[in-house]
Amino acid sequence: MRIVQKYGGTSVGSYDRIRNVANRVKALYDEGNEVAVVVSAMSGMTNKLLGMAKEMSDNPSEREMDVLVSTGEQQSIALLTIALHELGIPAVSVTGRQAGVTTKGSNTRARIQDIDPTYMNKILSEGKVVVAAGFQGLNEEGEIQTLGRGGSDLSAIALAHAVGADLCQILTDVNGVYTSDPRVVKNAQKMDEISYDELLELASVGTKVMQSRSVEFAKKFGVPFEVRSSLNNEPGTLVIEEKPSMESVVIRGVSIERNQARVTVTGIPDEPGWSGKILKALGESEVNIDMIVSNIANDGFARHSFTMNSDDLGRAQAALKTILADLAGGQIETEAGIAKLSCVGIGMRSHSGVAATMFDALGEAGINIGMISTSEIKISVTVEEAEIEKAAQVVHDAFELGA
Amino acid sequence: MRIVQKYGGTSVGSYDRIRNVANRVKALYDEGNEVAVVVSAMSGMTNKLLGMAKEMSDNPSEREMDVLVSTGEQQSIALLTIALHELGIPAVSVTGRQAGVTTKGSNTRARIQDIDPTYMNKILSEGKVVVAAGFQGLNEEGEIQTLGRGGSDLSAIALAHAVGADLCQILTDVNGVYTSDPRVVKNAQKMDEISYDELLELASVGTKVMQSRSVEFAKKFGVPFEVRSSLNNEPGTLVIEEKPSMESVVIRGVSIERNQARVTVTGIPDEPGWSGKILKALGESEVNIDMIVSNIANDGFARHSFTMNSDDLGRAQAALKTILADLAGGQIETEAGIAKLSCVGIGMRSHSGVAATMFDALGEAGINIGMISTSEIKISVTVEEAEIEKAAQVVHDAFELGA
Repeated sequence: MRIVQKYGGTSVGSYDRIRNVANRVKALYDEGNEVAVVVSAMSGMTNKLLGMAKEMSDNPSEREMDVLVSTGEQQSIALLTIALHELGIPAVSVTGRQAGVTTKGSNTRARIQDIDPTYMNKILSEGKVVVAAGFQGLNEEGEIQTLGRGGSDLSAIALAHAVGADLCQILTDVNGVYTSDPRVVKNAQKMDEISYDELLELASVGTKVMQSRSVEFAKKFGVPFEVRSSLNNEPGTLVIEEKPSMESVVIRGVSIERNQARVTVTGIPDEPGWSGKILKALGESEVNIDMIVSNIANDGFARHSFTMNSDDLGRAQAALKTILADLAGGQIETEAGIAKLSCVGIGMRSHSGVAATMFDALGEAGINIGMISTSEIKISVTVEEAEIEKAAQVVHDAFELGA
Repeated sequence: MRIVQKYGGTSVGSYDRIRNVANRVKALYDEGNEVAVVVSAMSGMTNKLLGMAKEMSDNPSEREMDVLVSTGEQQSIALLTIALHELGIPAVSVTGRQAGVTTKGSNTRARIQDIDPTYMNKILSEGKVVVAAGFQGLNEEGEIQTLGRGGSDLSAIALAHAVGADLCQILTDVNGVYTSDPRVVKNAQKMDEISYDELLELASVGTKVMQSRSVEFAKKFGVPFEVRSSLNNEPGTLVIEEKPSMESVVIRGVSIERNQARVTVTGIPDEPGWSGKILKALGESEVNIDMIVSNIANDGFARHSFTMNSDDLGRAQAALKTILADLAGGQIETEAGIAKLSCVGIGMRSHSGVAATMFDALGEAGINIGMISTSEIKISVTVEEAEIEKAAQVVHDAFELGA
């Protein structure tokens, strides 16, 4: 098999951990696999480099930040390659440039445009391990660019696609994707597999296994990948194209997101245009709106409710006050201290009664539901933050995910 | 003027020093010059990176060492560029690759094969400062290579040639090239100018202003350069093509080299081949031979004397014992604790009596001369190490270099 493995900053965060990674790669190589490894900078290194730039300027050039920060991964690839040599494994390091990664867009948050795998394929065909720098590439002008948050996962999945890997393994500090947060729901189970869409929905509701854009890339190009632990050898969770048998599972997982707030705007005339104005004002103030619920109240005025992270609440209030100043009678209500509970599963499409099961479980537990929002494969509700853990457990139990 | 400046690791060894360099570059830029700056890694950084590799292996791959060590300069260029921006100076960093430096030969000690200045010329023509990483380039396979000791000086001179600079300034921690070591000869003078050949001869006898290969490159391509201090604004020493007026100075400088040893091999038949065998054996033992004096003694046997650094003496003795084992009667005499004094100057070609003046001065001071060796523009003698300082002063005085 041709396998791409990705190890994050924590996994290469010390000399001993780098040696541990080298041993894991050796095991895979000794089984007869062709292996390419994508690594991040040693944990702490990126922050250290950012700190160096801050010594020079409060507002350093993003182009130069990329020149500086990309040295972190370059150091990791050299050290891991040397560690592999020490174990007798032939290995060759490649920077983002040598991996053939072309980027575009803004520095510090570039996108991958293309990957030319010629050099990596040459190394692999010589029976050597490729050790590639994640998170980086060159734009068409030959300038170094970094990919921003989650960039190394994206590098790994894109490289796996480029070299035609059979599998991409994302090695991390969790054992895989769980049916719910194991710190909250004690009998949460590690899933054997999950579809891209389900992971995307879970990611969008706070399950921070991976950045959405990496999963989206994998989905777009059909790259199967496995999320597994770098600390043990247990199988993780395979993230793959949806297949018919997956629909037999009604709900794949229950996700929670804390620290939410709700803003409700009332007294808005039920006329076209106001919703757009409000959302535009919030967007310009960099408020990330999550759920949106709108309807017409008994008084004939529109009533718009939004949820957002509590950290955004101040900015949202300020933005809305400005826009409502024009409108006598427009009012803002806010509620902090709420949380969101989501059920996700492609089985929802072919199974009826999912919402009823979820709401019944919450009702029996005496938990009041605030807002409700649904998509094709997700149902989200808000509850009091103090009740979120109990809510997660009873819903998890109701769908028998813990067995 | 188009000027290339090179700052070494000490000059960019702290955030304050980087800011100091930025201010110096700004001053040059504000005068209307086109400026390209070549920088080394921050002092201590290269050793730190070497230390990281040693944590992984006692014998790390030289290819990977170059990947690792080259990150040092890449960090420097980003930091200096950010510091220049902070002063309002438009500046763009370039790695060895972006500077168009193609290398060849072995990793960790590569040679510069070619420089394509297109990108640097573009930046300069836009009125921006180029901040280039010294010490590094890419070989034809696109692999990162470093240039070894003195590599950043070489980068600067080669870049100055490539962009057609009017002048290359090597900024260092000395004020320029002196007529002798100022710690020994108190009235030693900073020279205004010196020819490439003279500096090469001084470099070869221990005046470690610059590595010979950088001077040789400058000579080959006629790149004028100035050695000057990064700590003040005084003019330094201009190193240029020899010109007729230079011959009016009989002796340019007096150089000393301590810690020398002499090995004399006696009882060798005066037959062809023996000198070659001896030198070959010493070379294979990595003994760096300096002076060689051979003649025939009264007994009809050849007598070969060599000088070398005292550190090489043990290896030389071991190598010679092996080769003399074949030869009954061949003997080795050794003498440590000697030093070498050299007078260098192209004026020597057109002035007679230089050796006489030198020997007279030493004789009058009661200093005994051991071996003598001459080239077209240099006379070297050995003396007892205890007498070298006195010897340097009297010879320096004899040629009136101190006035």
